Amino acid sequence: MREFDLIDHIRARTGLPRGDVDLGIGDDAALLRVPEGQSLAVCVDTMVAGVHFPAGTAPRELGWKSLAVNLSDLAAMGATPAFATLALTLPVADARWIGDFVDGWLALAQQHDVALVGGDTTRGPLSITVAAHGYVPHGQAMRRDGARVGDIVAVSGTLGDGAAGLDVVENRVSGESASWLCVRLNRPTPRVALGGALRGIATACIDVSDGLTADLGHLCKASGVGACIAMNDLPLSAALTDYIDLPTARGWQLSGGDDYELCFTVAPAHWPEAQARAAAAGVPVCAIGVIEAEPGVRVIRADGQCIPAMAKGWDHFA
Amino acid sequence: MREFDLIDHIRARTGLPRGDVDLGIGDDAALLRVPEGQSLAVCVDTMVAGVHFPAGTAPRELGWKSLAVNLSDLAAMGATPAFATLALTLPVADARWIGDFVDGWLALAQQHDVALVGGDTTRGPLSITVAAHGYVPHGQAMRRDGARVGDIVAVSGTLGDGAAGLDVVENRVSGESASWLCVRLNRPTPRVALGGALRGIATACIDVSDGLTADLGHLCKASGVGACIAMNDLPLSAALTDYIDLPTARGWQLSGGDDYELCFTVAPAHWPEAQARAAAAGVPVCAIGVIEAEPGVRVIRADGQCIPAMAKGWDHFA
Repeated sequence: MREFDLIDHIRARTGLPRGDVDLGIGDDAALLRVPEGQSLAVCVDTMVAGVHFPAGTAPRELGWKSLAVNLSDLAAMGATPAFATLALTLPVADARWIGDFVDGWLALAQQHDVALVGGDTTRGPLSITVAAHGYVPHGQAMRRDGARVGDIVAVSGTLGDGAAGLDVVENRVSGESASWLCVRLNRPTPRVALGGALRGIATACIDVSDGLTADLGHLCKASGVGACIAMNDLPLSAALTDYIDLPTARGWQLSGGDDYELCFTVAPAHWPEAQARAAAAGVPVCAIGVIEAEPGVRVIRADGQCIPAMAKGWDHFA
Repeated sequence: MREFDLIDHIRARTGLPRGDVDLGIGDDAALLRVPEGQSLAVCVDTMVAGVHFPAGTAPRELGWKSLAVNLSDLAAMGATPAFATLALTLPVADARWIGDFVDGWLALAQQHDVALVGGDTTRGPLSITVAAHGYVPHGQAMRRDGARVGDIVAVSGTLGDGAAGLDVVENRVSGESASWLCVRLNRPTPRVALGGALRGIATACIDVSDGLTADLGHLCKASGVGACIAMNDLPLSAALTDYIDLPTARGWQLSGGDDYELCFTVAPAHWPEAQARAAAAGVPVCAIGVIEAEPGVRVIRADGQCIPAMAKGWDHFA
């Protein structure tokens, strides 16, 4: 397979038609028309083999996940995904690998009407960089810096499944719960509808990619506040409780990464409305703590003791 | 150096203030306001160590070049650069390396007022992916597909210097011409002002990154035409003629890459105006051939014989 065949293959399948795309893949740059009244939200994420995923991960999973982690960032801003670019570095140009990658990408891209408008293919160690672009009405994006003392801290879905999924992969565990956890790791669901629904009511929002305490820590630092969360209130999936002992599960919930749930803050008076909107968006949300004036993140353990969160999240260069 | 120190260092230096940037690096996504009446032009390019540049290339050169190759793509559309994202994969987080990389990036970014608004830093084999964004008035972008039979084919600057620069690096040649050619390789000048000046007069445009015959071939294919160019008319730099024999230089001009000049087409009646605008933009341009109905690119050699261009440009997977 030659480079231009590869590009043609990707282009033919991923350039979903959109009214705002004047020119997609195939020229020196793509041309887009951002709708009036909308800000453009832009994010970028790289996934490197052996760092972000085991080298043997199926290309179909990589196609999905490389887009999903970016749509999760857009969701955290309350933005609606629109288009993306893909920079793909591959050791060899394998038609089947590419086909499977595009299958996984498309399965998610079609759900959110995301057009691939540009990219670059290069030979080298396997690495995937996606830049995703979305729209959010001017001035309505959810940022990290709006949390206020007294706000409720909440999360969507369940936590700890991503870390458990990695444990499943690394230890080659089989079974129903293990399989479900693998799907959570490899095919995370970006909370796009929830992000849109929380716009105008959440005071701050971030997606949980590095681990809950690390990401909540980023939100608190940006807002100039702290937070106290209750370990017993962290939402557990049935699969996670089935898979592992509770203390290990709680550790994964606090400091494991790859969950791609939203962590957000909301004034107590607005909490019932936030729950109602989340339910309408089809995603359960759960109050796990409160914003406090004292900086840092604290965790009330199962025994009632309040301790500073130790987890700092993943540091690629530590 | 930890990952967040690294990000803070980059963020502090590269987030040039711009009125259209509502939110830069530091949240889940950046927020931008595209000016009314403007289309957004988006491109992305990856540079991998050992593929796009020798492993020992100075970080300062990489910072400049990783942005330059993208601004060159925007220039080819006639777009004005505005902001960029940077995905940087590094084997180790070396503060000095990062500082030098940012120095090189900034030297060019400041010239064009390009704000870095987002990014990702990852540990792994050295690789740099930049996505650049620019603005062009609705419907006025220069595309590859507008060349018409009878149009003049022209290029900016001089050709072959990039390939010569690579020869200099690989053979560790010293001297004045060799040094100048190295600068052409490592610090290409994106023809942004020229691209803007050619809007509304050039019928098609592409930047010369893969090699003249390959890139002109892309333009012809997109336009459904062919081209015949005269080898004797290809603009040669004094350094290139000083550095190497003419037949080798001509080969580099036709099929070497990394020149980052613009190759464009213009109706003969508009050629004087195109020359005048190019002069006003401070860039020499040179007519090298003509657009013909017969598909493919042909070259009139020094001996007057017309032959099909053989060069296909760089295929990463050939």
